[in-house]
Amino acid sequence: MLKTFNKRHFFVGKIVIPKNKNYFYFRITIFQKPLMKKKITLKHIAKELDVSISTVSKSLKNSSEISEDTREKVQAFAKLYNFKPNNIALSLKNRKTKTIAVIIPEIVHHFFATVISGIESVANENGYNVIVCLSNESFDKEVINMEMLAGGSIDGFIMSLSKGTQSKGDFHHIQEVINQGMPVVMFDRITNDIFCDKVIIDDKTAAQDAVNYLIFKGEKKIGLITTVDYVSVGKYRTDGYIQALKQNNLIVKDELILKIEDIDNCAVEIENYIRENDIDGVFAVNELFAVTAIKAARKLGKSVPEDLSVIGFTDGIISNYSTPSITTVSQDGIIMGQKAAKLLIDRLENDEDDEFYTTEIVETHLVERESTK
Amino acid sequence: MLKTFNKRHFFVGKIVIPKNKNYFYFRITIFQKPLMKKKITLKHIAKELDVSISTVSKSLKNSSEISEDTREKVQAFAKLYNFKPNNIALSLKNRKTKTIAVIIPEIVHHFFATVISGIESVANENGYNVIVCLSNESFDKEVINMEMLAGGSIDGFIMSLSKGTQSKGDFHHIQEVINQGMPVVMFDRITNDIFCDKVIIDDKTAAQDAVNYLIFKGEKKIGLITTVDYVSVGKYRTDGYIQALKQNNLIVKDELILKIEDIDNCAVEIENYIRENDIDGVFAVNELFAVTAIKAARKLGKSVPEDLSVIGFTDGIISNYSTPSITTVSQDGIIMGQKAAKLLIDRLENDEDDEFYTTEIVETHLVERESTK
Repeated sequence: MLKTFNKRHFFVGKIVIPKNKNYFYFRITIFQKPLMKKKITLKHIAKELDVSISTVSKSLKNSSEISEDTREKVQAFAKLYNFKPNNIALSLKNRKTKTIAVIIPEIVHHFFATVISGIESVANENGYNVIVCLSNESFDKEVINMEMLAGGSIDGFIMSLSKGTQSKGDFHHIQEVINQGMPVVMFDRITNDIFCDKVIIDDKTAAQDAVNYLIFKGEKKIGLITTVDYVSVGKYRTDGYIQALKQNNLIVKDELILKIEDIDNCAVEIENYIRENDIDGVFAVNELFAVTAIKAARKLGKSVPEDLSVIGFTDGIISNYSTPSITTVSQDGIIMGQKAAKLLIDRLENDEDDEFYTTEIVETHLVERESTK
Repeated sequence: MLKTFNKRHFFVGKIVIPKNKNYFYFRITIFQKPLMKKKITLKHIAKELDVSISTVSKSLKNSSEISEDTREKVQAFAKLYNFKPNNIALSLKNRKTKTIAVIIPEIVHHFFATVISGIESVANENGYNVIVCLSNESFDKEVINMEMLAGGSIDGFIMSLSKGTQSKGDFHHIQEVINQGMPVVMFDRITNDIFCDKVIIDDKTAAQDAVNYLIFKGEKKIGLITTVDYVSVGKYRTDGYIQALKQNNLIVKDELILKIEDIDNCAVEIENYIRENDIDGVFAVNELFAVTAIKAARKLGKSVPEDLSVIGFTDGIISNYSTPSITTVSQDGIIMGQKAAKLLIDRLENDEDDEFYTTEIVETHLVERESTK
């Protein structure tokens, strides 16, 4: 798994396995050198250049009251440290708002809703408020939301990348916020191009476990219903599927891998896929694909799990309430949210500069239900 | 239905039925005299008292630069109009943030998620951002969220009341925000104690329709699974159930009305209720109660709909994906969200003072599925 991190991660450190009655997870601390340590304020600049705060403020406004030499020095320093004075927000900059902003791709998605519940619980315990904004899977909206919120009304971000951002591969808006000294914690859909604290599951291993389970139950012709490759979690889960087949000396057939672009309109594609392929098991990378596969199988006269075993990913409402109920990889959103909030609050409240970032890997587990033998 | 509005609504006006391909809804404009018309700013006070803005500002800070007479006049005026200068927020007060705050009771609830989608779509079309905060059904959190956001980072609120607030009957935090000139639109869980724009469904009539449908299908012993009375929508739906039985000369039996306090732990209560009562139909005021009733019936060896017809409320994911799929009253969250956003944006962008508030009633319809005969 660690191979998936890029080479800018220069050191891999301790693995801690805490004891917990309900959940087991690994804590892997990945030490990364941050690009920029601390939020720069008027006060910092004043101290660094040994001038008054008022001189810094006036220099940044290019006031003729201040000598040209000092003005240039202050402006150069501010530029170097990416300090952008915002007239209105200036007085707010150093104020702790005790508010955390969460940016998620969509809200009609049980997993993200549970993550928010987890964030809320830890935030409230620590006296923080939570504001939620949606990117609606759009790069532009993600940028607008971050700019709006970074302007002074929040202390830090917890976010999961939009499809648009992952497809574009442009993360400048996140880097800018971090450079300004505002901490960011990413969860689930992350990028290795940004150095910050992260909470993820090991998607590849979890997918491998799911496919191994189907093989263990005797299935031999196993298909995959997944997303397009630029969605990081879909890509990792696809890798896990391929790995499991190879380990078990099963042939990977391209035609058995269905990649779906438009999640909301997948019914026809999935029905055609099940009709046209001779499979006895299928791994779906989310629960919507899984329940749609079950409905399609029923329509085509196939019994689940007798003729087709179905295993999903993410243990949401659908998996529990559909008939048959769906065997699934449980990705605990509440735990992920709690860990993300803890990482962010620790960073906000820790006066010491922590030069290293943490990536926490939350372990998944299989929930066995009726859709597999 | 209009009887449910209190007598401070002194006039009921036009009913408009717009043509729409997909949805029909009534627009009933209920004219209400607002307590306070407009956001009071430093500028207003200055103009009204014929002094400079700086004089107003200094008077409010009780500066000795200003004569005692003027100071008293300004302070009295500010008090009268509920003007509370917030030093930091002062400069932000008149700035349009183009941001709408939405406060909802909980997020792991498909109905609220769809309302947010609807709000987002209209807000984005009009260049507004949306911030979502959760009250987690708590009065205190609702108050904290509103105070935090009203401090300058948003233009107006769209909200659905928490259970805590409805149970307490304390709406001062909402009145304060309105008095400061910030528009509020309420949806779904509203109160008649606050004058503002509202978007609701006619819960009583919708419930009546649902119970009439069961009676039409031949059921005679019809039960109700509902919430405790202080949840306004639960109360109205209970009223509708009672009304339908009476209209059809069926006896209303108290023991057939199950009122549930803790929605998340309703399984045992519902199972006992179905075991102990001789019913052939049941109306559940939300889809979680409906699916739980179906699971309980199956466990007790009763077939749905042969032995027990079940009808739910709110057309969410569960109703669609459960087996049998659930006949339900569809409460269109997207339309409700769109209407709420439109009402708020109209008020924000309309320079003319609109002295009257609108209550829009979005029509529901019945979605017939497999859980009824």
